Amino acid sequence: MSDLPTVVHLTEEGPREGFQIERHVIPTARKVELIDALANTGLRHINIVSFVNPKLVPGMADADDVVRAITPRPGVAYTGLWLNARGFERALATGRLTVEGLITLSASEAFLWRNQNRTNEQHVADQHAMVERYQARGVPISGGFIMAAFGCNFAGDVPVAQVVRLVGELVEIAAQHGAPLPRVTLADTMAWATPLAVKRVVSAVRERFPEIAVGLHLHDTRGMGIANAYAGLELGVAHFDASVAGLGGCPFAGHGGAAGNVCTEDLVFLCDELGIATGVELERLVGCAQLAEEIVGHPLPGAVMRGGSLKRLRERLVVA
Amino acid sequence: MSDLPTVVHLTEEGPREGFQIERHVIPTARKVELIDALANTGLRHINIVSFVNPKLVPGMADADDVVRAITPRPGVAYTGLWLNARGFERALATGRLTVEGLITLSASEAFLWRNQNRTNEQHVADQHAMVERYQARGVPISGGFIMAAFGCNFAGDVPVAQVVRLVGELVEIAAQHGAPLPRVTLADTMAWATPLAVKRVVSAVRERFPEIAVGLHLHDTRGMGIANAYAGLELGVAHFDASVAGLGGCPFAGHGGAAGNVCTEDLVFLCDELGIATGVELERLVGCAQLAEEIVGHPLPGAVMRGGSLKRLRERLVVA
Repeated sequence: MSDLPTVVHLTEEGPREGFQIERHVIPTARKVELIDALANTGLRHINIVSFVNPKLVPGMADADDVVRAITPRPGVAYTGLWLNARGFERALATGRLTVEGLITLSASEAFLWRNQNRTNEQHVADQHAMVERYQARGVPISGGFIMAAFGCNFAGDVPVAQVVRLVGELVEIAAQHGAPLPRVTLADTMAWATPLAVKRVVSAVRERFPEIAVGLHLHDTRGMGIANAYAGLELGVAHFDASVAGLGGCPFAGHGGAAGNVCTEDLVFLCDELGIATGVELERLVGCAQLAEEIVGHPLPGAVMRGGSLKRLRERLVVA
Repeated sequence: MSDLPTVVHLTEEGPREGFQIERHVIPTARKVELIDALANTGLRHINIVSFVNPKLVPGMADADDVVRAITPRPGVAYTGLWLNARGFERALATGRLTVEGLITLSASEAFLWRNQNRTNEQHVADQHAMVERYQARGVPISGGFIMAAFGCNFAGDVPVAQVVRLVGELVEIAAQHGAPLPRVTLADTMAWATPLAVKRVVSAVRERFPEIAVGLHLHDTRGMGIANAYAGLELGVAHFDASVAGLGGCPFAGHGGAAGNVCTEDLVFLCDELGIATGVELERLVGCAQLAEEIVGHPLPGAVMRGGSLKRLRERLVVA
């Protein structure tokens, strides 16, 4: 009936996704407070900032300050996001981040144009240039990332075959620079996926590229996040991006209805209940979710942060 | 990979679940406004009130008034809930409801005691007495309902075998009165279920009682509602209770963290995307969800009511 993994690797996206979308300015110290708290939950990978144009994303204007101010915890990889060479150099210059090269493609050229102002052709050329830059700086290629892999608000549904073709293109880009592609992350950037679509796309990619690990980056705008993650788990997918409290996009403050990644603590709760190890201490993560909500100052969509874990209830029952 | 049904039957629980938990008084006219709007979406079954003690559930003190004030739409079954003979007689006396007899059991005696102040033995005796009363009044037995089928806050995990045994007990109660048991609804009353648990329990019940249709009543307190519903869909489950906007329990107003049933419009969205017919017009239902939020005066957890359907986006793309 299923092929659940025994271990799941989570990349926490909350600080990066969440703090770039909030309308009001969040003090650097509060961002750092959340990041340091997240690093104390057992999470091993936290994406903490974007090195992007502060005019376009004012919430990330303090990215360098945030990186400087955190208290790095041994064993935790802190990463940042960038879209071009300038951002990459800023990340490298901090000297405090785990810097890895991701090769990105978009299943929708319309989205690419709106998001990064690039055509597919320009973007592919950019990727080659970036890989050369990574290699010149001794930065390893960690994998590939496909935006809008399940559908696009500006281009509609994405055929499964197109995603498989794009994975092949990622492999090809890496190969042209003598690098393997150990992993590919399929991103449901605009929340078009259903569990059935996840199963179809992941299965097709797996069948064609059995040697490449598949990760999922699932936005929860239409409430399908956990169901889509479970569909991935059933196929043995063991890498997920997730966002504490569901940070990132704010369904309750009129930010256009887009929501963040699937909620980290809800996903950890699911893994706990399924006996899948995440290394994360759920109660501590729930504390971080409550802290995140306090910091942004409005309700966030996470459920377990309100409903509570079952571990606590079971412990009480044993005691009683 | 799956055995998705072609048609799903939804019972809308929002008015009953939602209006009994709100802290402030909601005017009867506003309840009626929501019920009439829901009846105009294509929903065929709406559970609109509880006939319970107004001292214990003040939000349902106007149950008779609500039933009197709705504008019944042909083809829509309006139902109510009761826990005893007095409540049943009130429902019958309205003359406007579809009145059917449900035989209920609880997988947790601890929950039964807290919820209804009855032991298992007393409750089973009550059920026999109620079936006799139903039959005396010519009211058909519509099926069975198992509370806490996936776990209980006061008793912990529920073994699969216990649920199967309880279905057998429901069949037996009906049989003693010469009635068949066409359906059994498994309720995740306190939100302990995972998709894996849903698959295990539903499969076990199906295997032992292949002639009985299985329905699911899933609370979303820990964010697993849609994932659990999808697990049911994959096994061909075609009957779900659901709650517009996720009404019922209020995670954002400090009502102790309990949430309502799985959100109706999110479930309809999922069915639409899977090509499963529900008979419901999603955009109208989203309008009802927004109305529900306006009526209760605080954010409700539904996602599609904020994120929007994909049908709208696809239509725009075709036009553009």
